[in-house]
Amino acid sequence: MQMYDLIRKTRSRVPLSESEIQWLVTNFTNGSIPDYMMSAWLMAVCCQGLTEAETVALTLAMRDSGITLEHSAYGCVTVDKHSTGGIGDKTTLVIAPLVAACGGHVMKMSGRGLGFTGGTIDKLESIPGFSVYLTAEELEHCVRDIGCCVVAQSGNLTPADKKMYALRDLTATVDSIPLIAASIMSKKLATGADGILLDVKYGSGAFMKTPEDARTLAECMVKIGTAAGKRCRAVITDMDTPLGCCVGNALEVEEAVCILRGEVHSRLYWLCLELAAQMLCLSGKGDVVECRKLAERAVQSGAAFAKCREMVAAQGGDTAVLDDPEQLPQAAVQKTVTAPEHGFIAAIQSEETGLACLALGAGRTADRPEIDPAAGVRFRKTVGDPVTKGEPLFTVYGRTEALCDAAAARLAAAVTISPKAPEKRAMIYAML
Amino acid sequence: MQMYDLIRKTRSRVPLSESEIQWLVTNFTNGSIPDYMMSAWLMAVCCQGLTEAETVALTLAMRDSGITLEHSAYGCVTVDKHSTGGIGDKTTLVIAPLVAACGGHVMKMSGRGLGFTGGTIDKLESIPGFSVYLTAEELEHCVRDIGCCVVAQSGNLTPADKKMYALRDLTATVDSIPLIAASIMSKKLATGADGILLDVKYGSGAFMKTPEDARTLAECMVKIGTAAGKRCRAVITDMDTPLGCCVGNALEVEEAVCILRGEVHSRLYWLCLELAAQMLCLSGKGDVVECRKLAERAVQSGAAFAKCREMVAAQGGDTAVLDDPEQLPQAAVQKTVTAPEHGFIAAIQSEETGLACLALGAGRTADRPEIDPAAGVRFRKTVGDPVTKGEPLFTVYGRTEALCDAAAARLAAAVTISPKAPEKRAMIYAML
Repeated sequence: MQMYDLIRKTRSRVPLSESEIQWLVTNFTNGSIPDYMMSAWLMAVCCQGLTEAETVALTLAMRDSGITLEHSAYGCVTVDKHSTGGIGDKTTLVIAPLVAACGGHVMKMSGRGLGFTGGTIDKLESIPGFSVYLTAEELEHCVRDIGCCVVAQSGNLTPADKKMYALRDLTATVDSIPLIAASIMSKKLATGADGILLDVKYGSGAFMKTPEDARTLAECMVKIGTAAGKRCRAVITDMDTPLGCCVGNALEVEEAVCILRGEVHSRLYWLCLELAAQMLCLSGKGDVVECRKLAERAVQSGAAFAKCREMVAAQGGDTAVLDDPEQLPQAAVQKTVTAPEHGFIAAIQSEETGLACLALGAGRTADRPEIDPAAGVRFRKTVGDPVTKGEPLFTVYGRTEALCDAAAARLAAAVTISPKAPEKRAMIYAML
Repeated sequence: MQMYDLIRKTRSRVPLSESEIQWLVTNFTNGSIPDYMMSAWLMAVCCQGLTEAETVALTLAMRDSGITLEHSAYGCVTVDKHSTGGIGDKTTLVIAPLVAACGGHVMKMSGRGLGFTGGTIDKLESIPGFSVYLTAEELEHCVRDIGCCVVAQSGNLTPADKKMYALRDLTATVDSIPLIAASIMSKKLATGADGILLDVKYGSGAFMKTPEDARTLAECMVKIGTAAGKRCRAVITDMDTPLGCCVGNALEVEEAVCILRGEVHSRLYWLCLELAAQMLCLSGKGDVVECRKLAERAVQSGAAFAKCREMVAAQGGDTAVLDDPEQLPQAAVQKTVTAPEHGFIAAIQSEETGLACLALGAGRTADRPEIDPAAGVRFRKTVGDPVTKGEPLFTVYGRTEALCDAAAARLAAAVTISPKAPEKRAMIYAML
C-alpha cells in the first residue's frame, strides 16, 4: 500500500477501504507516513469529504491506535457525555452527580482548558484536594459504587488523534465534520462507556456557527457511535451567549453547587435536567419524560447535592467548600460594572467573554500555563432581562486592578443593551 | 504573515494577494515554511483552484526565486519552445536548427528524461562529443551568430519550482492546472526568451487526457506569459500515438536528421513545420503562412540540415554521425515483429510504447540512472496504414535477446490491427 495512492483517491473522491484507512492510521501513528503526506491527505478530506463508511473506519482505527478501556467488569451500564465546548459550560459538574443520584453510572474523562473554553478538570481542581487521577481500583469503586467520577485522561488513549490533531491545528484542517467527528468519537469509544450523550453546541461561541452545521456533526457522530455498537444520542444546544451566569473555575463550581441544591432555575438548570434525563434514558432508566422527573426529584430531594459531596470526597476533595462556597479560592480584586442605560440585555458575546476571562487568568495560554482559579466574571443579568441605568450588570474577579479594568472594559463592550426585549431563543434546538 | 492564514484562505477560495504569494514562495524556498504546511496548501490549490491573478503572481514569484537569464545583450529576438512531454517527441531536434535556418534565434534549455518520456538532452548526448553545457560566451555565440543551441538547465534557476515539484510528486498534487502552468512558465520566464511557443499535448500518452483539458492548460500558460510581457502562443497537439516512427535516443536523432534533410513527409514533419512557423511568427518573421513557406523552403534547400550540422559542431558534437547515421550507437540485438493478420493499424498505445522502451534501457529509472543510447523501437507502420499478414510491424533494438523479447511482446500488445481503417485524427487540435 502506498500513501500516495490513498491521497490521490481521497482527492478524487474515490472511497478508501477499511483496510486502507487502518493502514493509514497505523502508519501515521508509528511515524512511517511523514507529516507532509498526512497534511495533504487531511486537506483532501477537508475539501472532498469522506463517506460515512470511511468516517466510521477512521474513527475505529483511531480508537484502536492506543489502549482502550473496558467497562464490562463494572457490572453496570456506564454512560458518558461529551460537549463540543463552550463558554461557562459547567454541565458536567452538575450532571455527573445528578445522573448518579438517579441510579446511573457516569465515567467521565475530561480535558484541561486550552484557549478561551474552560476545562472541566481545571474547574474541579479549584476544589482543594480534589484529585483527577485515580487508580484503576479507585475508578472502579467510584463508577460502580458511588455512580460517578470525573477524571483527567491518562494513559496512551488514541495517540493517532493526538498526533493528527496537532497537525490539523497547524495546517488549517481542523474545520471538517468527518475529522471532528472521528476525533471526538475515537476518544469516547476508547473510554469505553456503554452509552454516549453528545452535546453539540452552535452559535457565536461554538465551533459550529449554525444549528444546521451542528446537526450535521451530531448526526455524523451518532452514526459512528451506533456503528460501533454503542447507545448514542445527541442534543443540539445554543452557545450564542455564555452558559449560566459565571465564567471562571471556582465561580463555576459555586454556580454548579447552587444548581445541584435547587437554588437556581436558570436556562442552565433546565439544560442540565434535560442532559441528565437523556443520559438516564441511555442507562435504561425509562423514557425521557420519566427520566426528566427522576432528575428533577433528585435535585429537589437533595440527593443530587449529596451525591456531589460523595463524589468530591471520594476523589479527595474538601467538601467544606461545597457547603460554604466562600471557602473556594477568592479573588483579591472585584469590580462591578453597572448598566449605562435602561433597556433589555439583547446579547452577551460568548467568544469575547471567553477571551476576557482568558486574559484575566481564568484560562491557560501557551506562554502562561498556570491559571488563577478565582478569576472570572459573574453576570448579574442574562439575555432577555430588563435593566435600569445604574443597575449592576456583571462583576469581574481577578488578581489586580489593571487586569480587572481591562476585562471590565472588554466585557462591557460584549454586552448589548437595546430598548426592545430580544426574541427568545430556545436552549435546545434539536435532539437526535 | 502566517502560513496558517494563507492555507485557510486558499481552502476557502479567498484569493491571496500578490504579496502573500511572494511571501509564501520565498519562505517555502528558504525553508521557513515546513513541508507539511506547504503540502496542505498545495492540496487546497488542487481542490479549490487559484484565480488567474494568483496563478500569475505564483509564477512570477517562482521565476524570481533564483537566477534569471537576460537575453537583451544578444541584440536579437530570442524564441523558446516547451512541450508538455510525450513519447517519441524529437521536435526540438528538428525545430531549433530549422528556425535558425530561417533567421530566428532559438535558446532552448531542455531536461533529461525521467520515467517513460524521453529527454531532449539524452537524445543529443547520443551524438559523440555533444556538450549540453556551454559557458555564457559560448551560449551567446551560439544564439546570436549560429541562431540556435540546445543546452541543459544549469545554475540556480527556479529553486522554488524544484522544491515544490519534489513535494507535489510525493503528495499527489501534481495534477493541477494552475500548479502545472506556474511550474512550466516560471522556468520558461527565468530562461529569458522574448517569445515562447507552448506545445501542449493531449491523449493517452500525455498528462492531459482530453483536448479540452489541454486547451485549459494552454490558455492558462498563454495568459501568464502575456502578463509577464512575453510574446506567447500555444499549439494543442495529439499524443495518442507516439510522435514519429522512432522511440529511443540515437534512433530519434536519426529520424530528426531524415526530417531535416526532407526525406520524410510524415505527420511529424508537418508538425515540425507548423511549430517552426509559429516560432518564426513570434520572432517577427512574418505571418504564419509566410513563415510556414520559409520553413518548408529551408528544408528543401538543405539550409535546415546545414544549420543542424553547424549547431552540433558548435556544441562539440561529431557531425559525421549526421551524415552517416550508422555511426550513431548501434544495438547488439535487433528483433523485428510482423503483422499477425491483415488489416489497418488502428492504434499504437503511446504510454505502453514509452514503458516498453524504458524497460529496454532507453530511459532512466530510479534504480538504473544510466541509459542505453541505442535502445528503442522503430515502427515500420503508423496509425492508419494498411498491413498484410507477415509484413514487418516494428523493430526493437536492445542489449540482449531477453530485453528485446520482453519489449517485443509488450509492443505487439500495444499495436491494434483492425479490419477497418481508423478515423483520421488531426495532429493539431487548436492554436492559441
